[in-house]
Amino acid sequence: MPALKRKVVRVLKGETVFPPPVWLMRQAGRYLPEYRATRATAGGFLDLCYNPDFAVEVTLQPIRRFGFDASILFSDILVVPHALGRDLRFEEGHGPVMTPIGVKEIDRLDASMFHVNLAPVYETVRRLRAELPAETTLLGFCGAPWTVATYMVAGKGSPDQAATRLFAYRHPAAFKALLNRLADVSAEYLVRQVRAGADAVQIFDSWSGVLDDAGFEAFCVEPVARMVAAVRAAAPGALIIGFPRGAGVRYQTYKQRTGVDAVGLDWTVPMDLARSVQAQSAVQGNLDPMRLVAGGKALSEGVGRILDGLGKGPLVFNLGHGITPETPVAHVEAMLAQVRNAG
Amino acid sequence: MPALKRKVVRVLKGETVFPPPVWLMRQAGRYLPEYRATRATAGGFLDLCYNPDFAVEVTLQPIRRFGFDASILFSDILVVPHALGRDLRFEEGHGPVMTPIGVKEIDRLDASMFHVNLAPVYETVRRLRAELPAETTLLGFCGAPWTVATYMVAGKGSPDQAATRLFAYRHPAAFKALLNRLADVSAEYLVRQVRAGADAVQIFDSWSGVLDDAGFEAFCVEPVARMVAAVRAAAPGALIIGFPRGAGVRYQTYKQRTGVDAVGLDWTVPMDLARSVQAQSAVQGNLDPMRLVAGGKALSEGVGRILDGLGKGPLVFNLGHGITPETPVAHVEAMLAQVRNAG
Repeated sequence: MPALKRKVVRVLKGETVFPPPVWLMRQAGRYLPEYRATRATAGGFLDLCYNPDFAVEVTLQPIRRFGFDASILFSDILVVPHALGRDLRFEEGHGPVMTPIGVKEIDRLDASMFHVNLAPVYETVRRLRAELPAETTLLGFCGAPWTVATYMVAGKGSPDQAATRLFAYRHPAAFKALLNRLADVSAEYLVRQVRAGADAVQIFDSWSGVLDDAGFEAFCVEPVARMVAAVRAAAPGALIIGFPRGAGVRYQTYKQRTGVDAVGLDWTVPMDLARSVQAQSAVQGNLDPMRLVAGGKALSEGVGRILDGLGKGPLVFNLGHGITPETPVAHVEAMLAQVRNAG
Repeated sequence: MPALKRKVVRVLKGETVFPPPVWLMRQAGRYLPEYRATRATAGGFLDLCYNPDFAVEVTLQPIRRFGFDASILFSDILVVPHALGRDLRFEEGHGPVMTPIGVKEIDRLDASMFHVNLAPVYETVRRLRAELPAETTLLGFCGAPWTVATYMVAGKGSPDQAATRLFAYRHPAAFKALLNRLADVSAEYLVRQVRAGADAVQIFDSWSGVLDDAGFEAFCVEPVARMVAAVRAAAPGALIIGFPRGAGVRYQTYKQRTGVDAVGLDWTVPMDLARSVQAQSAVQGNLDPMRLVAGGKALSEGVGRILDGLGKGPLVFNLGHGITPETPVAHVEAMLAQVRNAG
């Protein structure tokens, strides 16, 4: 089956497909008993990202169980700085921990082993394309430079990225150099994923909602536009989904300013704004993950509003953020039944 | 001097004053050496909110030092659930801690001692109005029902309020009852502050940015509209500032849907959107507090953009969020000089 027949690919190219194709961010994850069982036999989280046997298996698990229309590579956005020589570990219950990068270390980031370090990821993509059902779209991904930089600067996650905003204000030239460096290597990383068999790639800018006008332009829009241009130059025809989580009204012009093909919407995006983004490109989203945890009327109403509001245009049904570990599998089944029986 | 001559009052009523009047959220706080000295001699944070001697003193400190155009009552949004009988303590470095409220406890919230418990706050307002310079606007405040409820349900702060979103989806009737109850007592609380001498009151909806369309309407707009109507009925002419932090594009219709007089803008609000809000009402904000920490060009550019973009309409210059403890006093002075010498 040629890639063009895959439903998610068709939608990302602008076609309206109804009922819409569906997948879930973090669909290979702890809400699945088979994922928890596989994880229990394996090593630490970061090791698993570099272990194609494990990564392929957990990526396929939700496809086997639910038949989602797309599969997203099991990995983490922080493998990029890790492959540049920055230390990284994941602490149970605390998320990623890194040594904060200093101004003078930015020029010393070492890309000489970048693709060697990431070779297991490319291997995972190749094996996934071979093992996935022909109709399943395969998505690669990476973090946007701003979002990756927030972890590199602060050394950990934080809700408002105050440390990184401050670093950017105090050291504007060095911070811009960091973003450009990340944009360049991340674009190469995505190109390799496309060449290994990814039908499309998603750029996660998970922390784009904490910036003022000037910051959003310089730290989010410009680096992503730089990445998109570089990916297009090296891999013409690659489909790119931008996901500037929390961008609010700035979603309105995101496609136009960055050049992405489609836009992922977080669950706080109002329907009017979502429709206006959809008038320019395919959209993906945007159910509140807590509605999926709650189930019942909260779930069916939330799903219904998205189908009613966005179903008449190009839509990939998804959550507005990753599925959480406490989500009952039965609620995923109920959601899928509602989406698939729509119309 | 009648209240009408106070600059912030004039702006809140829609008048353009340039250079704009200025105050800072959390201006009575740890960035000030005199605050730290006073705190060192006093008890725990919550005790201080109920201690008029202390609260008056720290509220006056930034007025003495900087001559801000407005003074905001030193208190905390969680005195409202505390005055309803919920336990509350503040842990150093961890913020507020409460026992999460259960569904069946909502009907049992006890308002019988509400105004008795809050009498020291009203006393603080009375003494502040007597001691403040005549030209200084005195602001009272409270938390919006949604924001207060997030702490009552989760028992602590969190960046995405997942626990409260889930509670609201699972127990819609009980959660609505909680919001209505909070709206009613909070409106009474604001009315008492106005009667004690507050020129205006601000409603902080600090966590309004984490909701979808239906949630924002039911949990933020409706309860605040209910509060505004109750305050207007009991205290005609009271000026009300709404601050739906993170509301993004929903800022556009916030005044119209809630009935507030003026709108506080967080630092992520784009200038185009800010201008369109200002076309309907006075606005307050919205410098990124990290620009004030950074100082230098990041600060002067940020201040300049707000003066240029919003200075031709009714503007109260402020930060887009509270001032942080690491802010150098010299940067506050530089910011004030730039604002006061504008035009």
